[in-house]
Amino acid sequence: MTKELFDAIEAYMKASVKESAHDGEHVYRVLGYCLQIAEEEGDVDYDVLLAATLLHDIGRNGKQGGHHVIGAEMAREFLPTVGFPAHKIDAVCHAIATHSNHCYGQQQTQEAKILYDADKLDSLGVMGIARSMMGVGNYNHPMYVIKDGQIDMDESSPTDTFIRYYQRTVRKNYDRLFTETAQRLAAEQKAIDEAYFHAFCQVVNGHHRRLENISELLDK
Amino acid sequence: MTKELFDAIEAYMKASVKESAHDGEHVYRVLGYCLQIAEEEGDVDYDVLLAATLLHDIGRNGKQGGHHVIGAEMAREFLPTVGFPAHKIDAVCHAIATHSNHCYGQQQTQEAKILYDADKLDSLGVMGIARSMMGVGNYNHPMYVIKDGQIDMDESSPTDTFIRYYQRTVRKNYDRLFTETAQRLAAEQKAIDEAYFHAFCQVVNGHHRRLENISELLDK
Repeated sequence: MTKELFDAIEAYMKASVKESAHDGEHVYRVLGYCLQIAEEEGDVDYDVLLAATLLHDIGRNGKQGGHHVIGAEMAREFLPTVGFPAHKIDAVCHAIATHSNHCYGQQQTQEAKILYDADKLDSLGVMGIARSMMGVGNYNHPMYVIKDGQIDMDESSPTDTFIRYYQRTVRKNYDRLFTETAQRLAAEQKAIDEAYFHAFCQVVNGHHRRLENISELLDK
Repeated sequence: MTKELFDAIEAYMKASVKESAHDGEHVYRVLGYCLQIAEEEGDVDYDVLLAATLLHDIGRNGKQGGHHVIGAEMAREFLPTVGFPAHKIDAVCHAIATHSNHCYGQQQTQEAKILYDADKLDSLGVMGIARSMMGVGNYNHPMYVIKDGQIDMDESSPTDTFIRYYQRTVRKNYDRLFTETAQRLAAEQKAIDEAYFHAFCQVVNGHHRRLENISELLDK
């Protein structure tokens, strides 16, 4: 694609993304991963990959329904208005429509697999911790809940916490990547989020163990 | 204090705290640190320490003015209503009124120093990362801003980011602790947040270096 077309798609992306956990910088990090994976894996249509990556989260606009489905519909309407090659629009929409966790296994093209992997890479490692914490901050959820004197580690517990998100999403992304490049990059990130998560639980549980003895300080 | 008095103060705290970065769990973690420091350092009035710790963030209620000053005023009104010893209320209010970063050096009592240290301990290490990220999420601020192709590390930059908060607050808390116990506990936490912060900057800057080459993929 030309620089003019790239700039037009980028401008539409910037005008569409809102949440700080899925802002323009998330898109640029995913784009960085896409370029890295594409360079190593090859067999890529860059028109499709660049457009799909820039537009993958434009559907996160608060409307009801999956943001991946909404985003694909928005891209299908938008791309013809900036002269994007008509015969490649289906491929862009397929990659956007299948980049969500819920669509794991539905990716039929190299570009869809690369976008999926790149998006997941930005949800693990340092960004797994960062974006989980920002997410609970965005919605004013708690980091964790205490059950029986320690952090509730049950990933099916009803409260939406950092702990639940880490267990249900971050940790599972490591085993759900298509490309060897993404698997290698994920492995390089794993130590930092595991060390962090372990230390986090240790700190919180240590405090709650200490609080169990508070009754000894109170008048009988 | 009696268990009844402790429970009454705790209930008032729970009804007063709102933000997820300063919720009841923050108070319990600070309480855990207070008990640990008090046990090692000694010379503590536990009535004062427990009341001040439970109530230290009740002033974070969106009203104008420093939350430490507002919290001390609220405590002065509240404590007589639950039968807290009148001659200890000044000491509780002093500890609350000086627990903020802005009051470093004004702590005149052992209890005020311990509360200050415990509150800062919950702002460094794993909780430094967690609560900084939650804070930017609460206000929908960005994690970082890019300047000249990499993360802007200038702590005086105008945008309120994770990077700026980490540089201005988390990092500085290590050198501003009164008690030897807190200094030791902080040192134990330092490696995890430094490793995280370094890896975070490396990931983001790596993506932005890669994006500089995107023009090579575009049509000339």
